[in-house]
Amino acid sequence: MKNRIITISREFGSGGRTIGRKLAENLGIPCYDRELIQQIALESGFDENYIKDAGEYAPGGFLSSAFSNRAFGPTNEDYLWEIQYKIITDIAQRESCVIVGRCADYILRDKADCLKVFIHASMNCRAERIVKVYGEQEKSAEQRLKDKDKRRASYHRFYTNMKWGYAPNYHITLDSGVLGIDKCVEILQNLY
Amino acid sequence: MKNRIITISREFGSGGRTIGRKLAENLGIPCYDRELIQQIALESGFDENYIKDAGEYAPGGFLSSAFSNRAFGPTNEDYLWEIQYKIITDIAQRESCVIVGRCADYILRDKADCLKVFIHASMNCRAERIVKVYGEQEKSAEQRLKDKDKRRASYHRFYTNMKWGYAPNYHITLDSGVLGIDKCVEILQNLY
Repeated sequence: MKNRIITISREFGSGGRTIGRKLAENLGIPCYDRELIQQIALESGFDENYIKDAGEYAPGGFLSSAFSNRAFGPTNEDYLWEIQYKIITDIAQRESCVIVGRCADYILRDKADCLKVFIHASMNCRAERIVKVYGEQEKSAEQRLKDKDKRRASYHRFYTNMKWGYAPNYHITLDSGVLGIDKCVEILQNLY
Repeated sequence: MKNRIITISREFGSGGRTIGRKLAENLGIPCYDRELIQQIALESGFDENYIKDAGEYAPGGFLSSAFSNRAFGPTNEDYLWEIQYKIITDIAQRESCVIVGRCADYILRDKADCLKVFIHASMNCRAERIVKVYGEQEKSAEQRLKDKDKRRASYHRFYTNMKWGYAPNYHITLDSGVLGIDKCVEILQNLY
């Protein structure tokens, strides 16, 4: 039987990762999130924190400009993208699972039976959440969210040429702030 | 008790109207779609077909350029927009219901307890559907869909300044082609 994959893209602070974890647990399948970064670190030799950050910067920004230049060949991010591409493809061939972030929806677009999900929430809900869950400073929460959103959208756009957060790119999108985390999990679980 | 409204925006041919009808029937509440156009016709004196078309053209295009000019005041579309605004606001104050199209999500944004829905489907699914359901010519189906999408997006953008089809503008968006009409109805019914 063909594996069935749920890919979750999400706005920072919307609880997309929590939804992915709970959903996977309820369905009895693995959830790849931090595990992906660990695998990319293992295969690439890069530090996990570097990979985490690189997944939110399109080449040209961030450290890449200091260490490499696209005119002279692939950047560090391009190299990481290739490894990430291979790891996600391998996982999808191996087993049914939930994959959070890392453009998995795009990477698997013609390769696997995917349910493509996007999770978002209002700025207020997300700010409240990152203060509560991640212990972020209340004062700077909104600026940090805008910054993160911009980076994720730009990274996604650079490598996939798809509009991040545009409904027709997903099978289902959910406002976790209005519907609640548990309701989102329930809807996705019923759909699977 | 405050009325609860479900607003459904949809790509042409995605079955959004059918979903709205079935959903309303299951919930035992009215569904406003063609009825809205009839009411606008009644209050404005314009022909129903004219109103139907005007709901898909931003002022400046269509017949408006021949009959009126924004430099000299409101266009026919602006006049229809005002009536539409009033009718939709009145309905939401009167009763719980489903409203399909006509920017109801925007008009009711701060006025009612709304579940904001967007329904879409791939070009192939929609082309197949409009040939089957509306008896459209197979040959020109794709062009007609692109044309309709462009007009709806442009009309919506003109009057609401919101991006049509952008996930964060809705509480839930669904791909009716992949999930199926009945599944969409079921999900929305459970959410209400």
